[in-house]
Amino acid sequence: MTKASQAKNILFIMYDQLRWDYLSCAGHPYLHTPNFDWVASQGVRFDRCYVQSPQCGSSRMSTYTGRYVASHGATWNGVPLRVGEPTMGDHLRDAGMECVLIGKTHMKADWEGIERLGIAPDGIIGVRVRECGFDPHVRDDGMVPTGPNGPYNPEIGLDSAYNKYMWAKGYESPNPWHDFANSAVDDEGNVLSGFELMNAKLPANVREEDSETPWLTSEMINWLEARGEQPDADPWCVHLSYIKPHWPYIVPAPYHDMYGPEHFSPPVQGSAEREDPHPLLARFQNAPMAKTHSSDLGREATLGAYMGLIKQCDDQLGRLLNYLRQSGQIETTMIVLTSDHGDYLGDHYLAEKGLFHDCSLRVPLIVCDPSPECDGTRGTVSQALVEAIDLAPTFVEFRAGAETAADKAHILEGRSLMPLLRGELTDHREFRDYAISEYDFAFTPVRECLELSVEESRWFAVVSERWKYVQFRAEDKLPPMLFDLQDDPDELNNLGASEDLLHVAAMADGRQKLEHWALRISQRITKSDNDIKTATGSSQARGVTLGFWQTDETTEHLFVKYRGKVSQRFTPEDK
Amino acid sequence: MTKASQAKNILFIMYDQLRWDYLSCAGHPYLHTPNFDWVASQGVRFDRCYVQSPQCGSSRMSTYTGRYVASHGATWNGVPLRVGEPTMGDHLRDAGMECVLIGKTHMKADWEGIERLGIAPDGIIGVRVRECGFDPHVRDDGMVPTGPNGPYNPEIGLDSAYNKYMWAKGYESPNPWHDFANSAVDDEGNVLSGFELMNAKLPANVREEDSETPWLTSEMINWLEARGEQPDADPWCVHLSYIKPHWPYIVPAPYHDMYGPEHFSPPVQGSAEREDPHPLLARFQNAPMAKTHSSDLGREATLGAYMGLIKQCDDQLGRLLNYLRQSGQIETTMIVLTSDHGDYLGDHYLAEKGLFHDCSLRVPLIVCDPSPECDGTRGTVSQALVEAIDLAPTFVEFRAGAETAADKAHILEGRSLMPLLRGELTDHREFRDYAISEYDFAFTPVRECLELSVEESRWFAVVSERWKYVQFRAEDKLPPMLFDLQDDPDELNNLGASEDLLHVAAMADGRQKLEHWALRISQRITKSDNDIKTATGSSQARGVTLGFWQTDETTEHLFVKYRGKVSQRFTPEDK
Repeated sequence: MTKASQAKNILFIMYDQLRWDYLSCAGHPYLHTPNFDWVASQGVRFDRCYVQSPQCGSSRMSTYTGRYVASHGATWNGVPLRVGEPTMGDHLRDAGMECVLIGKTHMKADWEGIERLGIAPDGIIGVRVRECGFDPHVRDDGMVPTGPNGPYNPEIGLDSAYNKYMWAKGYESPNPWHDFANSAVDDEGNVLSGFELMNAKLPANVREEDSETPWLTSEMINWLEARGEQPDADPWCVHLSYIKPHWPYIVPAPYHDMYGPEHFSPPVQGSAEREDPHPLLARFQNAPMAKTHSSDLGREATLGAYMGLIKQCDDQLGRLLNYLRQSGQIETTMIVLTSDHGDYLGDHYLAEKGLFHDCSLRVPLIVCDPSPECDGTRGTVSQALVEAIDLAPTFVEFRAGAETAADKAHILEGRSLMPLLRGELTDHREFRDYAISEYDFAFTPVRECLELSVEESRWFAVVSERWKYVQFRAEDKLPPMLFDLQDDPDELNNLGASEDLLHVAAMADGRQKLEHWALRISQRITKSDNDIKTATGSSQARGVTLGFWQTDETTEHLFVKYRGKVSQRFTPEDK
Repeated sequence: MTKASQAKNILFIMYDQLRWDYLSCAGHPYLHTPNFDWVASQGVRFDRCYVQSPQCGSSRMSTYTGRYVASHGATWNGVPLRVGEPTMGDHLRDAGMECVLIGKTHMKADWEGIERLGIAPDGIIGVRVRECGFDPHVRDDGMVPTGPNGPYNPEIGLDSAYNKYMWAKGYESPNPWHDFANSAVDDEGNVLSGFELMNAKLPANVREEDSETPWLTSEMINWLEARGEQPDADPWCVHLSYIKPHWPYIVPAPYHDMYGPEHFSPPVQGSAEREDPHPLLARFQNAPMAKTHSSDLGREATLGAYMGLIKQCDDQLGRLLNYLRQSGQIETTMIVLTSDHGDYLGDHYLAEKGLFHDCSLRVPLIVCDPSPECDGTRGTVSQALVEAIDLAPTFVEFRAGAETAADKAHILEGRSLMPLLRGELTDHREFRDYAISEYDFAFTPVRECLELSVEESRWFAVVSERWKYVQFRAEDKLPPMLFDLQDDPDELNNLGASEDLLHVAAMADGRQKLEHWALRISQRITKSDNDIKTATGSSQARGVTLGFWQTDETTEHLFVKYRGKVSQRFTPEDK
């Protein structure tokens, strides 16, 4: 078994709704992110990392379980991860590593399953089941919306960890998350909600050090400080999971006015996608949200805040990196920076996420393993097709070696990145042939608009070296799509109806890849491939001796327990 | 909600390895099974019922969970059903019905999952998790093979419920299951093992009433008698699950010599499948077991015992039916008769099961619901394509109505048979377009012979009104197959390579159906379709107010919690 010779801990940082291209190391011309860039200079930046669903909860459940959305079943926010689904935390604890949560998961507990299996919800096991396998130091999903029908998350109401912090710091409001951290204030003291984009350029009415990103960074540093006093404890994996730059789009000073129109990327909007859009895109484009965000006014307001939030994330990353340097842990800690999905920001006349363009599906992924074996790849950019589900097996291999990771391959559907980090794969195309993302839009009003059933309201994207193929469950109503990522990296031209033989072949290939993927084994999680190889043919020597007319000298040993005399006879007299 | 007006209990009887066509009501010319026939005359015989895998454990886990093998993951015997996978017992108990096991399940407990979730294995919940959701009155898998490497099932060793019964009855042997119930005896008292087919025509050395089928029937009657003393208890579903006519092929007198060559069906063996077999068939045909069973000698020995075992099953069914009549329960009990898979018996030069011909995949299914709503279908034969996974939703609807069954449709992948039993579907083709079976032969030596990976060692069968399409995971090594069930009901001519346009179209249709099936949602078991419809669009009124530039009079109510004043100001002076 190979083992990391020096590095032992994992700092697994996730941002929320951070696009792949809003970092200077990924090429953003005006958003300078020196701390992200520093980690990239010390590790590998994976330029083509795709999440398994462009939706917080589903994407995260894939990352945390190392399994596709269709495999774990949490197809949307609020769909509980079924009890018993093994997670990163389970695997790492098996390998002698603590696995701690600080921040967001968007996990919804399977209360029905917990009750059915009689699991005490507040015991150690119950808490892990509820927190998708992590030991929570701080669980805070970073979202405390509330409206006429009550809070978004009725289980916690307004009592989030962050609100408790804010109350303790003297912020006076039933919901400081909204009224201070995510709102501005006018001269009369009126709350100006960050949910109205017209307020996005104003500074949030909060001390910068009390806003969400610095608060969570402090929680991380506090945890590290406390941990520093237990030198003999197990190595750790901490999932530090920020809500930002996720909406509401508003940020405290000085970040609120750092970026103006001169720093904004032009919108990626093509005439074809406006004039003759695919029917599903048309529905999403038609939503008021998409119209606001793709307008010049909406884009400008959003982008300034979005970039400011990322800049704040970068500064806080710098603060955390400094702490690691000062405490001597920078040499012993694998650092991972990624996101759960992107943000359309008006591109393609769309907002938020939920569709399949790169701005929604593609995320930053930077991994720095300080082990000497990885020295050869520092500062490089990998073009390998990488999936978010690769992180779980990467962490298992980092901690416990390649054999242990291989033993988990019947559960972990991703592939460890360690061979790429160690420079063992020279041709990045050998790593993966295609990446898969899925999305269940049954929960959106678009299902009703298109008169689809729940089952029909899904799409699948197959991303390969050159092509992106999108297939819809309701094929009779929603024709498949194709993008040529090489000639059309902005994905403005849907080639789904092209009669060009190259495109026809790419469509057929995409469908074939999807079918191959769909027929994978995903649920045989109780027996590994090695178990099967060991078991093959073993039943004969345990008495399952089928199809013998009679034994001979070569087989008689199999009947050793079937020989002998009995002293009782129950057969009829005439026999 | 509709409810069964009179019938309230379910007697769910499963035989093991009983072919669809070895009953007189299914057309067997010499094997007279008046008790099966009587139930068929009072209910509906489903002539085209397919199991989801031709393997005991996998097939049963599908029947008990109402889910395809790929969905529950127990792809072979000995693969544990993952902890938390909901079963028939869970659903029926939710609906206020007791669900009891008497006999075999082939369930393997997920001990690793039980430990990970901290479930007490001997508590009520732990026992149910270990027994795939049933409350076991008697658990006995009917198989106690043992050999040089020890017993087939190390968890119980030789201490099966049946062996305990036999010891109590005075049978003197470490393994009465083998040495008496499944062996003959020679004049010197030597055990003549039923595992050697040359002994199959001899009578088993056991009192007939102590052999396995009468023993289990007695257990059932004993349970009913004890239950009769609790008239106010919940209604019950008992899964009475026999091992027979499964091997070893040997039966006590008088059944051992009831059937001779004059009663045997001729082998279904075609010259093409011998001379130019599909490469997978060739490997299975090449196994010594297949050679023995497809020889005249092997067939004759096996068939006599097999038919005798079925005749004994029929007699014991008669005994049980009489008990139900005498105790007044025949009018209040739905009776279900089925099997977990068939037996090649030498047909197609094959033995056992594990491949996709009807003699392996197709099983008897007879359902008698004595409720008045079902009077119109009594004694009819349905040609609807039915799957074994239809039983679980049938039972839920029988007990709790169609709405409750529909609410479980995100878990139960089968379809309730109640509309067919009530005669509400006039065209049987409306019931199901195609049935699916799968098989994982990674556990067999054939995987090694064909140099396949574990993942590649699988096949899928798509059965439609007319065609049977078979696709292999290793498509490059194992070409797909096609049978025309209308013109070639014996499945002797593989049309997979035919250039006839009809066949080419049927192949393409089979592949498309398989792809459609493979892309189904199977794991979102924590949210029903109704949950989704209720949740759609509900987050906006809980404060997730996205994409507003500013509110107006039509949307201001959504911001009710986002308005008001704060007395604190933290923004910079210059703002």
